[in-house]
Amino acid sequence: MRAKLIDDHDQRVFAVIFDTGEDPMAGLTRFAGEHNLSASSFTAIGAFSEATLGYFDWDKKDYERIPVREQVEVLSLIGDIAAGKVHAHVVLGRRSGAACGGHLLAAKVRPTLEVILTESPGYLQRKRDPASGLSLIRID
Amino acid sequence: MRAKLIDDHDQRVFAVIFDTGEDPMAGLTRFAGEHNLSASSFTAIGAFSEATLGYFDWDKKDYERIPVREQVEVLSLIGDIAAGKVHAHVVLGRRSGAACGGHLLAAKVRPTLEVILTESPGYLQRKRDPASGLSLIRID
Amino acid sequence: MRAKLIDDHDQRVFAVIFDTGEDPMAGLTRFAGEHNLSASSFTAIGAFSEATLGYFDWDKKDYERIPVREQVEVLSLIGDIAAGKVHAHVVLGRRSGAACGGHLLAAKVRPTLEVILTESPGYLQRKRDPASGLSLIRID
Repeated sequence: MRAKLIDDHDQRVFAVIFDTGEDPMAGLTRFAGEHNLSASSFTAIGAFSEATLGYFDWDKKDYERIPVREQVEVLSLIGDIAAGKVHAHVVLGRRSGAACGGHLLAAKVRPTLEVILTESPGYLQRKRDPASGLSLIRID
Repeated sequence: MRAKLIDDHDQRVFAVIFDTGEDPMAGLTRFAGEHNLSASSFTAIGAFSEATLGYFDWDKKDYERIPVREQVEVLSLIGDIAAGKVHAHVVLGRRSGAACGGHLLAAKVRPTLEVILTESPGYLQRKRDPASGLSLIRID
Repeated sequence: MRAKLIDDHDQRVFAVIFDTGEDPMAGLTRFAGEHNLSASSFTAIGAFSEATLGYFDWDKKDYERIPVREQVEVLSLIGDIAAGKVHAHVVLGRRSGAACGGHLLAAKVRPTLEVILTESPGYLQRKRDPASGLSLIRID
């Protein structure tokens, strides 16, 4: 475990609202680039008309894709942005109330996704992890 | 996607603690009115003795009600407050560990719900969305 | 419902990154002690190679243990720290996308857990709740 103070008292908070048909991963990645976000975190709720989730397969060292082809409530979308890269995990609620989720690869919003994003003035870097092949946040 | 800076550096953070028998939706709505909250977000954990969840039915343009009549852990409660209206989605954990969830319509806390609420000085407005009939956060 | 302002504008935000094999509950408890955290909250995403969840059994007044013995995505980890005690609830995603969760008793990270922790300058105390036997956050 390594920790880094990324904000002593200079946060900026954004409301980022997505409309029907928009993809939050593409949108947040563009937003991170435009605002040069280097250490941010966010939470969101809303709904998707479809989504593609990922489960990291430790043997293949790649994400197994889990397609969700129905209207679902976004019960929880939590993520961070480091070194320009958006990392987000989602929990979805089906019509029955059953919950599923995974690493968020792509989604289509319907009718809204309400993201509250907090940017801290610190900087977080990523480094390739040899064991998984993933680019992970690294604190030296 | 539209974004709005709602806090440059003037947040207020509240701990809002609910006790057995209280309804968090009613309580947070009252709290939002008393403190005139116009752009806030919150996360919470705790437990409910019962809850009523909603799944938005796109054909009926209304929430299908999903009753939960058992003691459940509140694994995640994420929400925002805009224009005095509380919007919250919840993930619940059953005795088996299975997760369910939805739009939170009502609940009874037992024994506690620990809410951390952050108020930003900005203002967010809602507007009726003709396609869904819902009152959604709107950034012009 | 009782509320307390725990931050007027003096937050500190930490990124706390866990590596393979580490236990986040033990790590966060140590971190809370080292930094003397008295009113903090956090969100996290990542993955575990195993975990032990808890469901509070109201009759036994104790946590029923739910072992999870497979690699899972950490879809949501939300918690707070009051009076040095870490309280966290987690939602996990299995290979199929199915979600489960509970009160987090222990876990093994693999390959990362990315925690964003916000410390507020206020103070929150805990008190034993006679009905449950649990030590709950108490606002007088």
